[in-house]
Amino acid sequence: MRDVAIVGVGSTQFGRAQWSLLKMMCEASNDAIVDAGIGERKIDAVYVANMGASRNNRMAGLSSGLVDRMNLYPHTVSETIENGPASGASAIKHGVHSVASGYCDLVLVCGGERMQEVNNFEATEFVSYLSHRYAEYPYGVTLPSLAGMFTRLYMERYGVEARHLAMVAIKNHLNGAKNKKAHLRIPITMEGILTGPDALNNNPWIAEPLRFFDCCPVSDGSSAVLLAPAEMVKEFKKTPVLIAGMGQATDSQAVQDRPDPTELTAVRMAAERAFAMAKLTPKDIDVAELHDAFTILEIVESEECGFFKKGEGHKALERGETQIGGKLPINPSGGLKSRGHPVGNTGVSQIVELVLQLRGEAGDYQVPKQPKHGFAVNFGGFGNNVVATVLKRGV
Amino acid sequence: MRDVAIVGVGSTQFGRAQWSLLKMMCEASNDAIVDAGIGERKIDAVYVANMGASRNNRMAGLSSGLVDRMNLYPHTVSETIENGPASGASAIKHGVHSVASGYCDLVLVCGGERMQEVNNFEATEFVSYLSHRYAEYPYGVTLPSLAGMFTRLYMERYGVEARHLAMVAIKNHLNGAKNKKAHLRIPITMEGILTGPDALNNNPWIAEPLRFFDCCPVSDGSSAVLLAPAEMVKEFKKTPVLIAGMGQATDSQAVQDRPDPTELTAVRMAAERAFAMAKLTPKDIDVAELHDAFTILEIVESEECGFFKKGEGHKALERGETQIGGKLPINPSGGLKSRGHPVGNTGVSQIVELVLQLRGEAGDYQVPKQPKHGFAVNFGGFGNNVVATVLKRGV
Repeated sequence: MRDVAIVGVGSTQFGRAQWSLLKMMCEASNDAIVDAGIGERKIDAVYVANMGASRNNRMAGLSSGLVDRMNLYPHTVSETIENGPASGASAIKHGVHSVASGYCDLVLVCGGERMQEVNNFEATEFVSYLSHRYAEYPYGVTLPSLAGMFTRLYMERYGVEARHLAMVAIKNHLNGAKNKKAHLRIPITMEGILTGPDALNNNPWIAEPLRFFDCCPVSDGSSAVLLAPAEMVKEFKKTPVLIAGMGQATDSQAVQDRPDPTELTAVRMAAERAFAMAKLTPKDIDVAELHDAFTILEIVESEECGFFKKGEGHKALERGETQIGGKLPINPSGGLKSRGHPVGNTGVSQIVELVLQLRGEAGDYQVPKQPKHGFAVNFGGFGNNVVATVLKRGV
Repeated sequence: MRDVAIVGVGSTQFGRAQWSLLKMMCEASNDAIVDAGIGERKIDAVYVANMGASRNNRMAGLSSGLVDRMNLYPHTVSETIENGPASGASAIKHGVHSVASGYCDLVLVCGGERMQEVNNFEATEFVSYLSHRYAEYPYGVTLPSLAGMFTRLYMERYGVEARHLAMVAIKNHLNGAKNKKAHLRIPITMEGILTGPDALNNNPWIAEPLRFFDCCPVSDGSSAVLLAPAEMVKEFKKTPVLIAGMGQATDSQAVQDRPDPTELTAVRMAAERAFAMAKLTPKDIDVAELHDAFTILEIVESEECGFFKKGEGHKALERGETQIGGKLPINPSGGLKSRGHPVGNTGVSQIVELVLQLRGEAGDYQVPKQPKHGFAVNFGGFGNNVVATVLKRGV
């Protein structure tokens, strides 16, 4: 089995895209190719991470479309990989297997999602297709409503308060404001969204106890990474980043099937598997991108992944440990909350952001003392198919 | 790189399913697991081949749903692989890479499609999402209309006649009538569909020169294969079948971009790559399952894959060489034409059928002199992303 490294990254602006899905994906892909400097080398495969093109964009065979637009036929082969909102990390995993096996040398993994072709109600309906077909969906369950119930239980059991949820949003908006590619570059304050006289107007309920600013936006965007065998990294321009560990695990699809619905078992197990493969521990991690589709998730994931004890994530947050400059910066890019959440793409964008951090190229939101180890959690469904990744600067 | 073998296969009835998509997929998957006899061994990954669940069945994260229904969480991880109507072979390819790399031992690949939740007009519209977004789709192009234009050109250039197209349908319906799991078990005759007084009633135009019986049906169905490293095959019950070669290639998405639209370059290149990996030639193949979504495709693929010279496939067909008992039996299972075409599943079902042939378990449609080498072509879009597979009995 060969080790696999990331030799190039690229990303579009996140937000309401002016361009078609394929044009966005071409932009991110070309950026990754130029970033790596591949010269005359051929790309053996393109794996696309996407969740909704056949429903929201009326496009099937999206990966073949990308190969066509990038003029990579006939040599380059392709597939689309879907694992709900964890599609991005899953597509990278498939790229890793293809390179590790020796079947491919260069694999381009491109995530892309263009949500604006449907309205926000339709987008929420589409995402609710992730819920259990008989146990959840017919009762009108949506992902925000599941997250609301989960949050209430967590608040009651562990003493998490509304202000802690707001702190996640404030931190991530502050970070995202410094990230030129983020969707919501709007600094927000505790007074504005929670304690001030206009708070309820500014920040209405979505699924109580979750408010507007506890939920990530519906975004368009595309990101890409170029994978190569570790033995080839010297042929490329930039500092390589090793995929030191990848772990994945599953959980029941219906949340009501879980013995304790406040446990995110698949997150814990995916992280343990990723750390075991990397032969590292949570203490070794210098920067993390967690899947904060809802503010509560950043807190709980920071516990399940072993960075803080169960029930203490919100205390570490309150102490400022997860800010840029803190002990373990979480979501310096702005996270899903501010950078945005083009669902099928998100896992790729998390890895792109970590690579920029490990290379010291994150600019205004660079974590101090150029980090060596990065960590990401990409969360599918309501935690029923989760992928964790450990990255290491150098090979 | 480890060699990879198929140690178990399973399949549902094809046609109009009485059950939900996930129930069908469970049935095929369980059959494959029982067929292999895995005992206490764990399945490391489930890769699902599906094209339309998020649009036609309102289900995203389908692979996670299957892991849930089969009660395989938390250990077993999963993704859905989409490559249009070539999704099935593509999902098997990803399984091969995961096992070959050493990341996984047992990988279950399950294809499934349930088309009946939309009507036939909607199904044709959905499949047309494979066409080029700007060069084809807005002009009302559908896959049958592309196939019609392709057929006309081929007939004019190579002397293929309507009766040759009908011969493909007649042969495949005759074969499928013997396959208990086939969708259309209706023997048809030249008189009934082409030369008789009721032919136009029985067999109306779809996209001239293609008639009703030149097009595959819209089917529901699921098939599954269980993959394992070749070094482990002795642990399972059945004769193992080695995945001796897999090849894939791409072409322009818009057919009008091709220098010669009668050439299926990606089919030719995918076959060449598969044969090169297997260190075999077309002469070594004893039985083939080709992607006869339209009758013309079986003829042209039989040429592009090297079984017959360009422009001579219809002559071999006329001589009976592709019948069960002929020199190279093609589509003894009935093919897409009669067995059916649940789009995302088809590539898996082709491999299941070949495994049955190589094991000598195909019953009434068994090819004589138990074949040793099988070959499949799974065709995505209008030939813009094609996967070819060479199978070999034993490891």
